Amino acid sequence: MQNKEIRFASRPAGMPTLDNFEIAVAELPQLNDGEVLVRTLYISVDPYLRGRMREGRSYVPPFAVGEVIMSGVVGEVVETRAPAFQSGDIVTGMLGWRLYNVAKALELRKVDPRVAPITTALGVLGMPGLTAYFGLLDIGQPKEGETVVVSGAAGAVGMTVCQIAKIEGCRTVGIAGSDEKNRYLTKELGVDAAINYKDADMRQAVKAACRNGVDVYFDNVGGEVSDAVLPLLNHGARIVICGQISLYNLDRPDVGPRFQPYLLVNSALMKGFIITEYAARFSEGVVQLAKWLALGKLKYAESIVEGFENTPHAFIGLFRGENLGKQIVKIA
Amino acid sequence: MQNKEIRFASRPAGMPTLDNFEIAVAELPQLNDGEVLVRTLYISVDPYLRGRMREGRSYVPPFAVGEVIMSGVVGEVVETRAPAFQSGDIVTGMLGWRLYNVAKALELRKVDPRVAPITTALGVLGMPGLTAYFGLLDIGQPKEGETVVVSGAAGAVGMTVCQIAKIEGCRTVGIAGSDEKNRYLTKELGVDAAINYKDADMRQAVKAACRNGVDVYFDNVGGEVSDAVLPLLNHGARIVICGQISLYNLDRPDVGPRFQPYLLVNSALMKGFIITEYAARFSEGVVQLAKWLALGKLKYAESIVEGFENTPHAFIGLFRGENLGKQIVKIA
Repeated sequence: MQNKEIRFASRPAGMPTLDNFEIAVAELPQLNDGEVLVRTLYISVDPYLRGRMREGRSYVPPFAVGEVIMSGVVGEVVETRAPAFQSGDIVTGMLGWRLYNVAKALELRKVDPRVAPITTALGVLGMPGLTAYFGLLDIGQPKEGETVVVSGAAGAVGMTVCQIAKIEGCRTVGIAGSDEKNRYLTKELGVDAAINYKDADMRQAVKAACRNGVDVYFDNVGGEVSDAVLPLLNHGARIVICGQISLYNLDRPDVGPRFQPYLLVNSALMKGFIITEYAARFSEGVVQLAKWLALGKLKYAESIVEGFENTPHAFIGLFRGENLGKQIVKIA
Repeated sequence: MQNKEIRFASRPAGMPTLDNFEIAVAELPQLNDGEVLVRTLYISVDPYLRGRMREGRSYVPPFAVGEVIMSGVVGEVVETRAPAFQSGDIVTGMLGWRLYNVAKALELRKVDPRVAPITTALGVLGMPGLTAYFGLLDIGQPKEGETVVVSGAAGAVGMTVCQIAKIEGCRTVGIAGSDEKNRYLTKELGVDAAINYKDADMRQAVKAACRNGVDVYFDNVGGEVSDAVLPLLNHGARIVICGQISLYNLDRPDVGPRFQPYLLVNSALMKGFIITEYAARFSEGVVQLAKWLALGKLKYAESIVEGFENTPHAFIGLFRGENLGKQIVKIA
């Protein structure tokens, strides 16, 4: 049984490249009591990982050069020295980009394949779904009839936000990067209006789609997309800062219009968050998301790349907007 | 008894000038039932009035050209057809820049000269004091031992914020526009560190004064001052957007580093507000501020310009940072 791992080879300058990653053969360490050997089935690649590739403070400590990259993984237990897990169990956790991980039982959560396809543990029933749920409902607090604008609307988080906003009775406007994605948002997910941020008249389009102003802005993107949305805020608007993917590959803070005046004149609130702050309420979120899923009120999309060696490629693709919904790498 | 009034003659482009105002002789209208004739004693000039001189949306509707400017006034009742007021009563309210105003009883509040000098109704016991109190305590929520940074620290709002932050047990850093103001902040008000934003090494000075980062930033100024503070935010920081005086005279949104990433990585909150939202709690605020004043825990400074005709001049001086504490015009 040979193991492989993907190491962080060098810090990217700007857009990450394949050179920033190194695929290497690795040994399997011995299993100790309380540990489990997990064969990787699916790896989640996420935009926030770019932040960990930068030196200095972010959500979480940066990756050290030479370290194995970690992200959400779904796998199968193939050997166990922890009584809570049996061989054949499907589990998820934050694990290394490896074919096989040794994990402590406490780091893993069982995935029930009867509830939904197991990949949803990395998407709509995992961190992205929870991020959408708590970010929108707890910070955004949308009310019926309000206008909710979502940037990065065709990503795993964004499309869940769009649908929860619709469930809450809001006019929902998605901003994404292709007409194909936008067709999916309007035709499949029932989003009221979808705007392609690559269109020359993006600003006008956002304005036209938000004739009653913007009450909630769920922002995954930042940059010029936000510049188009923020002048439209209504009094008491809430802006959820979930991600800023347009800025992740910049080497220094980007410049744009200072928008504190918009917050000032509208008594608006802007709040950043990181989903781990809601850990105590995860089960509430998963239960509600699974219920909506079962009722057909919540849909999801996945973009699957096949092959362990293609994990860095799938990650880089996130910044080209190649994914519709959750970007996953299928291993086995 | 001749009346005079100051009208809004033209919209300023950039910094307001005396040409934007017109002093005119005015008639006294007849007093109807429920109305009071008030002789102006003191006029408050406030930075936010600049917002009302611009067309388009702000806190409050813009002034129409030709209209009499309105702001906080303290005056004496000289004639009354309202049972709640007697001749000789000292009152305050939002009134016109006039020697005499006819006001409805409901628009006025009595000022008790035994509690504190009557000018405090325009400053520490008026809107600026309440703005400091609710903005800092309700949005900023400072905790003992935290670092609170205040821009516009030597203005009426800012110096009150600084002192409440000290009362709450915080390390308090003020940013103001002259060494003289900063001496007042540190020597008279006990502010821990004061920084002159005109110094070339402002950024370094802010950093040096906030070695443990910034937990609360009470911002009256915006622009480059905020650019220096926002990179220092701690996890869970709160930013109170109270004013943006550095931007009020710009014709279009100013450009600077986009700082959503700082909010994102620190789960920080930024919130604009307007003090009238706290109207239901004003008495709570005034009682507490008056108590601190009586105990000597809260001090205030006033800059007084004499003469009704000098009101526009005093207003313009706000944007040159000519005032220490509350800028007031003394009429009679």
